[in-house]
Amino acid sequence: MTTTDPAALADRVADGELRIHELEDHADYDTAAEARRLLVERETGADLEAVADYTFDAEQADPNVDNMIGAAQVPMGVAGPVPVDGSAAEGDYYLPLATTEGALLASVNRGLSTIRSVGGATTRVTKNGMTRAPVFRVGGVAEAAEVVEWVADNVDRLREAAESTTSHGELLDVEPYVVGDSVYLRFAYDTKDAMGMNMVTIATGEACELVEEETPADLVALSGNLCSDKKPAAINAVEGRGRSVTADVLIPGDVVEDRLHTTPEAIAEANTRKNLTGSAKAGSLGFNAHAANVVAAAFLATGQDEAQVVEGANAITTMDARENDEGTTDLYASVSLASLEVGTVGGGTKLPTQAEALEILGLRGGGDPAGSNAAALAEVIAVGSLAGELSLLAALSSRHLVSAHEDLGR
Amino acid sequence: MTTTDPAALADRVADGELRIHELEDHADYDTAAEARRLLVERETGADLEAVADYTFDAEQADPNVDNMIGAAQVPMGVAGPVPVDGSAAEGDYYLPLATTEGALLASVNRGLSTIRSVGGATTRVTKNGMTRAPVFRVGGVAEAAEVVEWVADNVDRLREAAESTTSHGELLDVEPYVVGDSVYLRFAYDTKDAMGMNMVTIATGEACELVEEETPADLVALSGNLCSDKKPAAINAVEGRGRSVTADVLIPGDVVEDRLHTTPEAIAEANTRKNLTGSAKAGSLGFNAHAANVVAAAFLATGQDEAQVVEGANAITTMDARENDEGTTDLYASVSLASLEVGTVGGGTKLPTQAEALEILGLRGGGDPAGSNAAALAEVIAVGSLAGELSLLAALSSRHLVSAHEDLGR
Amino acid sequence: MTTTDPAALADRVADGELRIHELEDHADYDTAAEARRLLVERETGADLEAVADYTFDAEQADPNVDNMIGAAQVPMGVAGPVPVDGSAAEGDYYLPLATTEGALLASVNRGLSTIRSVGGATTRVTKNGMTRAPVFRVGGVAEAAEVVEWVADNVDRLREAAESTTSHGELLDVEPYVVGDSVYLRFAYDTKDAMGMNMVTIATGEACELVEEETPADLVALSGNLCSDKKPAAINAVEGRGRSVTADVLIPGDVVEDRLHTTPEAIAEANTRKNLTGSAKAGSLGFNAHAANVVAAAFLATGQDEAQVVEGANAITTMDARENDEGTTDLYASVSLASLEVGTVGGGTKLPTQAEALEILGLRGGGDPAGSNAAALAEVIAVGSLAGELSLLAALSSRHLVSAHEDLGR
Amino acid sequence: MTTTDPAALADRVADGELRIHELEDHADYDTAAEARRLLVERETGADLEAVADYTFDAEQADPNVDNMIGAAQVPMGVAGPVPVDGSAAEGDYYLPLATTEGALLASVNRGLSTIRSVGGATTRVTKNGMTRAPVFRVGGVAEAAEVVEWVADNVDRLREAAESTTSHGELLDVEPYVVGDSVYLRFAYDTKDAMGMNMVTIATGEACELVEEETPADLVALSGNLCSDKKPAAINAVEGRGRSVTADVLIPGDVVEDRLHTTPEAIAEANTRKNLTGSAKAGSLGFNAHAANVVAAAFLATGQDEAQVVEGANAITTMDARENDEGTTDLYASVSLASLEVGTVGGGTKLPTQAEALEILGLRGGGDPAGSNAAALAEVIAVGSLAGELSLLAALSSRHLVSAHEDLGR
Repeated sequence: MTTTDPAALADRVADGELRIHELEDHADYDTAAEARRLLVERETGADLEAVADYTFDAEQADPNVDNMIGAAQVPMGVAGPVPVDGSAAEGDYYLPLATTEGALLASVNRGLSTIRSVGGATTRVTKNGMTRAPVFRVGGVAEAAEVVEWVADNVDRLREAAESTTSHGELLDVEPYVVGDSVYLRFAYDTKDAMGMNMVTIATGEACELVEEETPADLVALSGNLCSDKKPAAINAVEGRGRSVTADVLIPGDVVEDRLHTTPEAIAEANTRKNLTGSAKAGSLGFNAHAANVVAAAFLATGQDEAQVVEGANAITTMDARENDEGTTDLYASVSLASLEVGTVGGGTKLPTQAEALEILGLRGGGDPAGSNAAALAEVIAVGSLAGELSLLAALSSRHLVSAHEDLGR
Repeated sequence: MTTTDPAALADRVADGELRIHELEDHADYDTAAEARRLLVERETGADLEAVADYTFDAEQADPNVDNMIGAAQVPMGVAGPVPVDGSAAEGDYYLPLATTEGALLASVNRGLSTIRSVGGATTRVTKNGMTRAPVFRVGGVAEAAEVVEWVADNVDRLREAAESTTSHGELLDVEPYVVGDSVYLRFAYDTKDAMGMNMVTIATGEACELVEEETPADLVALSGNLCSDKKPAAINAVEGRGRSVTADVLIPGDVVEDRLHTTPEAIAEANTRKNLTGSAKAGSLGFNAHAANVVAAAFLATGQDEAQVVEGANAITTMDARENDEGTTDLYASVSLASLEVGTVGGGTKLPTQAEALEILGLRGGGDPAGSNAAALAEVIAVGSLAGELSLLAALSSRHLVSAHEDLGR
Repeated sequence: MTTTDPAALADRVADGELRIHELEDHADYDTAAEARRLLVERETGADLEAVADYTFDAEQADPNVDNMIGAAQVPMGVAGPVPVDGSAAEGDYYLPLATTEGALLASVNRGLSTIRSVGGATTRVTKNGMTRAPVFRVGGVAEAAEVVEWVADNVDRLREAAESTTSHGELLDVEPYVVGDSVYLRFAYDTKDAMGMNMVTIATGEACELVEEETPADLVALSGNLCSDKKPAAINAVEGRGRSVTADVLIPGDVVEDRLHTTPEAIAEANTRKNLTGSAKAGSLGFNAHAANVVAAAFLATGQDEAQVVEGANAITTMDARENDEGTTDLYASVSLASLEVGTVGGGTKLPTQAEALEILGLRGGGDPAGSNAAALAEVIAVGSLAGELSLLAALSSRHLVSAHEDLGR
Repeated sequence: MTTTDPAALADRVADGELRIHELEDHADYDTAAEARRLLVERETGADLEAVADYTFDAEQADPNVDNMIGAAQVPMGVAGPVPVDGSAAEGDYYLPLATTEGALLASVNRGLSTIRSVGGATTRVTKNGMTRAPVFRVGGVAEAAEVVEWVADNVDRLREAAESTTSHGELLDVEPYVVGDSVYLRFAYDTKDAMGMNMVTIATGEACELVEEETPADLVALSGNLCSDKKPAAINAVEGRGRSVTADVLIPGDVVEDRLHTTPEAIAEANTRKNLTGSAKAGSLGFNAHAANVVAAAFLATGQDEAQVVEGANAITTMDARENDEGTTDLYASVSLASLEVGTVGGGTKLPTQAEALEILGLRGGGDPAGSNAAALAEVIAVGSLAGELSLLAALSSRHLVSAHEDLGR
């Protein structure tokens, strides 16, 4: 039944003999992709020459994609180097960023260069916990209260069940929430160097079986949206998800003027009116200028889950003009990302270009101790975001935004 | 001064003679990228062989990236075809998706296949407006009130100024917001087939000059975060940004059972407890299961701005089990994306793999009439999101999530 | 059947002959209330002597309460006077406040006294519109788009229908929102001196009949929660409801020190870390210290709807330390209440104590021009809120909060 | 110096000899209030006869008000009785409500009567914790991480410090949050029968001194708005403040039809489109119809803090039509109030009319065990809110809202 002729395979799909996702059962992965391209080209008139020019091994990409036709290629650049003083990151880092937004790399690079000129940035992971929150149906609020009590009394048993499914993950906490006859249990785990969504889903599934055995609760969905994955939710902005990570830097006023062409006071005013008051008025969970830009580009370069850029945008930027002992004014700048979900193992991190990007950072694969690579990645991204905030606020406060974009001639 | 030897160029950067972003001034773009790779490889020990294997023209990618070293390659697959009845989209579409999340394509494809089996989905763009909201400083609330009044009286002049900078964009509305001595003006434009951020930034910059000339207001920042770009903000979820687009489908109960292995009632219950009540309890602006997954993957494939996945997550999914005239039960399913920002011209849409993905959709370049291609892209993504919602809710309500992930063996 | 013996009436209710809400059908209103008290006293053992000591006419209170047993008495004080420069308010005002929270009056009074010492505060209503947003069921998204279009084309007819029910109200705007097969229409009205909820409910009900006649939409509920009444909703914080009103003042540093025992810098820092950054981190729609305290106490004193304190809390406070031309530092302080719903006619404003409180303000009954009294009330409350913010932030920044409460010995 | 002639005292204030808040130093409290009324009457032309007719002892009201002139009188009614099955509440309750909104008592009473007809409602407090969250300034993110770690290691010492200030309160938890160089510590306490704001403010103040002694953190404000008191904040809606309390009831379809004149299906549809989807689209933290109405009226009657109605509005209502074993359809209805802050001691609970209202409930003063009275009050208010939700949704789904209001002729 197997054939290596992609055109013949495409015909068979067109004729209804095969379904489009069954091609890998009838040919090697590269041939299957070629057959699929041929089919799509015929049906749509598209020419998929560039899409076909992928550099990874199609079979090895199987855990990352179905119905593969090739690859999207996104330009990658580097910014830096920048000295980072973190809890896990330590030393000088180049930050690889993949993006289609002109000016982004230049903007981050300008910020990093400014940070480098004052000796680097400080950064810390202040909280860590990947979450999964199943929703259960109970008979009513009386049963809901019973389940809440049972959970409080049986965290150890839930931990045992959950951790039986994973060699790395550790259950940190289980927090119950009640809405009428729905009970949500938010499980939080230390997933070490993995972003961990699959790990916590499987572990929580096991814990759910215990809940169902021991209480009247019936599982409705393994995710009840209090996790909350890939949605803009206050629970993540407030309580964190993945790593909560903060970075800051103190920049003398003359450096602000020389390198950013503005003043600490002007940046601080722009930050207050835009990022604090403006975001407040917008009903926002993101009090920053464009943290998501850096998060998205770093995620894309290093094989993270692009949809989790949503949580990455839950960031607060502060900028403060402060008189120092010498009577001049410094700029204190910080960015705090509440819910940055990153890993250096699993997901897209094994793909060739993404693995190389992690190598640029020196953070490919599991860290020693476990979790330190993912923590360091979070810290470097936080410093990159800080650089992006500094640079954009400087541009805005010196009114460069329009002209910067104009110069790029897009 | 120009040399074509990348190693020599890398040396010069290492020696401090050149700065890393100046390489394009001293060599062609491909050589500059090679020199940069060499430099980074030396400094970090990384091997950038795969990153170097890009298929686009480095010089043509210049508007999309700075400090280029190559490309990130993200696996691309296709889902579909699916019949779409939209205001702009009409006919059968294959949806290209680029992702590293296994199971996503399969999940979307299962949903699209279900939708196809009932004749396709309906979709409409119900609102359209790309926004930019500068913040101005005024002398106090008395001046703020004056500016608000001036704006109300001078929308035509603002339109004339704004539209003088663009051949395509049309100013639709200017909405003022006051917080103490800050005045925010939210300009909304029809940007046709462009996502339009640059267009509206330039146009609004021109309008700001008029505001500064005619009122006591001083511009502080061209973006005051009421736009709100790349932040999870209620103003976008409520009022929309880019396109507000909705898709729905009615699926007979037997089709739900045959193809999704669950029932309309079970899906509806899972949706209510998870997407509605669960998101409510999470303080969320996203009342959906994983719309961001489809948005992110479609954005990546078609050259959209990845960071705008943040706004793409502002989506509400409804699922309802309804008895029909024959006494059986149908599933009514819808997804409403409040702020989907897409374009088929500009941004990353010209890059080869992205342009080919748009060709798969038949939506490459400007539409006729102008704006129809971007509108159709929004509508097809909405249908893709609907498919993703259906499929994941079906999996959850039939408890397949864990095992599906386990099967994938990540 | 009628009797004037309250004990006999109470017996009849106890015996099941009468229902508790039917007492007014069998006796005058005061006797009915007495009978009800007797019944409740018997059933619960309570002694309702103080509740019985109300000063208003029971029959006249009938539009304000059912099943009346008497009155709750809440201590009322006055703060002020304070000079107000508003769009409607002009001159010196005493602000009556009813509360059970010790220190509140003293706190507001200290703030007002500080404001008075610098010549008063400026305030403006910058937006006005009471809203009601019915929700309609449609056949699907295609019909939803039709309804949206119909509404855009028929605002004049909707206005005619809505305004046919009211001699005062004016329809300002109708904004459509689509979620799947639900269409929400947010009607906004100028309700002049009335808070206006009843007016807009009736007017919108009439407009809904037109929508149902002319489109396929079916009304599901006259309020679809996009109004949004008495819920903490971003739509109100962003777009306003009732009056959006802002007040500000500039206070020289020496006045801050003399009267508030702190410095402009210390207040500004406390405001930024607490009201801006702290509220940001809390996922809040209220970026203030305790605006709701002043709103609640003013509402209670003047007969407003106490539950609308919820919307009154949608306020942003800004505090800024600014160097002036003389080289000293001033404090710029503002508060912006997005959705303050007040009236000087209707509701509880006719009750004797509430009417007297409005007399203290000189704002009892309809204004000339219509709407000016309610606008002035909004502006004076904004100034009161500003005073409360100043005073509490001063107390916090000088660490007086604990001791202030301790002194009160509650 | 003391005089008992109020007119002479008023003269002295008018002449600038005395300040308006010093009157109690020169006369008994009732005379001081009279003098203040005289002064205000002269200055404003108001006639304060009704305000003067208060029934409580002016001196005893001193902890509740400053600058007293009298009282606001708000009509009070009763609803019920209703059987309540709670964790603390048990038996039949009449619910006293003070309001100026006509139809509210009738609406709640109709709901309670429906609940009574099916045997009463079930209710549970599922979480309890009054919070105070000071904000500290640290030297930067490195220090922030140190403080977070110190707190985690020293909860026992913080507890000892905090509890040294109170004989009743118990520290339950301390949760740290970092934003740049600001550290917020959210202290949560069991405050038993007191609402507890003063208790937790004093206790937290003591704990803050320990933090300042042992860490580099400097207290900026004893409240950093992550508490969050009297602001509409997601942190309260998600994590709770005061009591999280839920109530539910199952009502047979025929009872829904007989008493509420609608069907389970119609109520469920109205709830989904209005309270769930509508609130979702509004960016709301309140997914209910009018819970704040019941909360505000019960708070006013029983001496609670009216401004905390803001948190009381953080409620989610669910309504579900369910087929039962007999093939007919029941209505399952629930309301979950995330952050209901109530007490039966302290605050306004000692005032005569408020104390009598608590007597009606049988919940005046401290409970046995401590905390049981406040918990029971929370549970009865939850049942009252459930009644209000049922009644209003029934009215909306049977289109009675407009006519109900029209009948009341306001």
